Amino acid sequence: MINLVRPNIVQSAGYIPGEQPTDSTTIKLNTNENPYGPSPRVLEAIRAVTSEQLRRYPNPCADLFRQAAAVLHGVGRDWIMTFNGGDELLAIMVRACASEKDTVLFMAPSYSLYPVLTEIQGARKLVQQYKITDTTWSLPDNLEKTDASLLLICNPNAPSGHFDSITQLEQIAKHFRGVVVIDEAYVDFASESALPLVRKYENILILRTMSKGYSLAGLRFGYAIGQASLLREIEKVRDSYPCDAVAIAAATAALEDQPYARSTWQKIKAERARLSSALQAMGFTLPDSHANFVLAQIPHSVSPLLSAKHIYQSLKERNILVRWWDLPHLANKIRITVGTEEQNDRLLEELKTLIYSGVKR
Amino acid sequence: MINLVRPNIVQSAGYIPGEQPTDSTTIKLNTNENPYGPSPRVLEAIRAVTSEQLRRYPNPCADLFRQAAAVLHGVGRDWIMTFNGGDELLAIMVRACASEKDTVLFMAPSYSLYPVLTEIQGARKLVQQYKITDTTWSLPDNLEKTDASLLLICNPNAPSGHFDSITQLEQIAKHFRGVVVIDEAYVDFASESALPLVRKYENILILRTMSKGYSLAGLRFGYAIGQASLLREIEKVRDSYPCDAVAIAAATAALEDQPYARSTWQKIKAERARLSSALQAMGFTLPDSHANFVLAQIPHSVSPLLSAKHIYQSLKERNILVRWWDLPHLANKIRITVGTEEQNDRLLEELKTLIYSGVKR
Repeated sequence: MINLVRPNIVQSAGYIPGEQPTDSTTIKLNTNENPYGPSPRVLEAIRAVTSEQLRRYPNPCADLFRQAAAVLHGVGRDWIMTFNGGDELLAIMVRACASEKDTVLFMAPSYSLYPVLTEIQGARKLVQQYKITDTTWSLPDNLEKTDASLLLICNPNAPSGHFDSITQLEQIAKHFRGVVVIDEAYVDFASESALPLVRKYENILILRTMSKGYSLAGLRFGYAIGQASLLREIEKVRDSYPCDAVAIAAATAALEDQPYARSTWQKIKAERARLSSALQAMGFTLPDSHANFVLAQIPHSVSPLLSAKHIYQSLKERNILVRWWDLPHLANKIRITVGTEEQNDRLLEELKTLIYSGVKR
Repeated sequence: MINLVRPNIVQSAGYIPGEQPTDSTTIKLNTNENPYGPSPRVLEAIRAVTSEQLRRYPNPCADLFRQAAAVLHGVGRDWIMTFNGGDELLAIMVRACASEKDTVLFMAPSYSLYPVLTEIQGARKLVQQYKITDTTWSLPDNLEKTDASLLLICNPNAPSGHFDSITQLEQIAKHFRGVVVIDEAYVDFASESALPLVRKYENILILRTMSKGYSLAGLRFGYAIGQASLLREIEKVRDSYPCDAVAIAAATAALEDQPYARSTWQKIKAERARLSSALQAMGFTLPDSHANFVLAQIPHSVSPLLSAKHIYQSLKERNILVRWWDLPHLANKIRITVGTEEQNDRLLEELKTLIYSGVKR
């Protein structure tokens, strides 16, 4: 096999997605899905799809969606480009901007797809650590001074949920020599976006997804917002028909139903506040989350006895999935997707039992 | 912009897909869609999709579809891998097998995405010409002796429709040092497939699509058949969730309704024979087509006066779209997708008028 595919592929472990159990009884707080489901208009749009729409190639540019997104964001239609999920956009940006001689810059801990995409491309990785305390995460200094040709910043960041200020991002983009992708997969749960920067900087590309805010993880639909001149080049790297006819109809319906989507964001933000307070009351420490998850560090009082790994495993035995990574800065933390009130209550109850027994032991 | 994306991207013209008019009155014989529409079971499957399926990430491996394809093709489920259209599979094979130092080998004239994907990757292109007469196309000699790491063969070939014998493909694959992708996008309209070779050769990967045979061009669904050891490496390059929940349900329903699909293939093959004979009777020359289109060369009697370009344009004015390329070996030919009986009749009628006036002029 070593002779059939490139050595960098053989050496790469590939991306390891979160568990996706098929049963419906699991309380699934591990992959940041929106617990409330998509707007009812989405199913209506899907059910209105005709045989003729399936038979023919879809509109290559997903113009219906682009039009809706252009209106929503107050940009031209040619500033919007659609993809088969945000992940496809990330892959295409690495392919467009980084040759094997070039460097892709990103932070750690962040979205673990960034290093994998760089490995697949055979480009060089430059990984810089966030500055981390018990309750704060912040960007390392001098990012703009590296010679990387592509910078990937997740904001709000996963898995921390923290938010880097737009002013800070602007200073970096202004002086960075390559493209800055601001991965706003979770921005619907934050109070600000880097969108205004796109008008000023040709080298900024914003990533959005329908998976989280619009509860369409099952649909695979993401989009970029950037200047038309940059998108024209990116388009060459993209498949001719990345989004299918059903997905275009469904994503457009979801985007157009802003009142519905916003009502789910409000509920999630309210639950996030409640969940964060309850975790803090138990002794967990966490950075302020601007996403639909929290990254909770095991209380110092119990951590010598009770590890994050053990908590993750114990919750799993109790049919609650959260995310745990055996990685620097993460091994003593669990990431919890904000669920419904009932789901969060169940989680908190189980955590209390675990922590209490942990302290006692 | 030149500084923001790689120079090979800036220099590439990108892939130029066939025209996709939005009106429904055009007789669209330009992009090889199946004129009969998908199985009625497909719409049923789409309408049965639930809000919960949209909310959650889809099954990463599309196991439902893989199971159906494994049964159909008599291979293990781990010999099947799904993609967001056959084009995505091609892109991933180039990324998996060709570094910037490696060579991708393909024929011309063939599917015009092959050179574009190689340009985007920044790998070297090795293009060999088919041996072409008025009525035959055949593979160049000694393909297996090149040092390419990836060979892309379209069989039946587009835009010629000709079929290279499986024996010939076997001889090439046996001695070729890299991966041989046999792009069988049109194989449902042929009488043979290279599928039996997959069992014998680890370096063969078969590409299939649901776009043509199953009339699901609007859905973006393709799959690979290959040995599990090769697919395990390819999987690392693929997105975690390339196929969405709706597409998985729809493609599975289509694949499982073999009687319906086969009935459309029979009708298309019968119409292909009729269309070919009628074109020959008018003086067009063409290779035997094993696909759902024919590549017709303008009769020698009229070609000094009436060019293929002119015929393409005149048909377009009459609301009939066919495909024409200003490329070596193709500039004197038009490619016509086999339509319904009525569509083919309309085309033949218009062609007769054009040819007759061309001869007269």
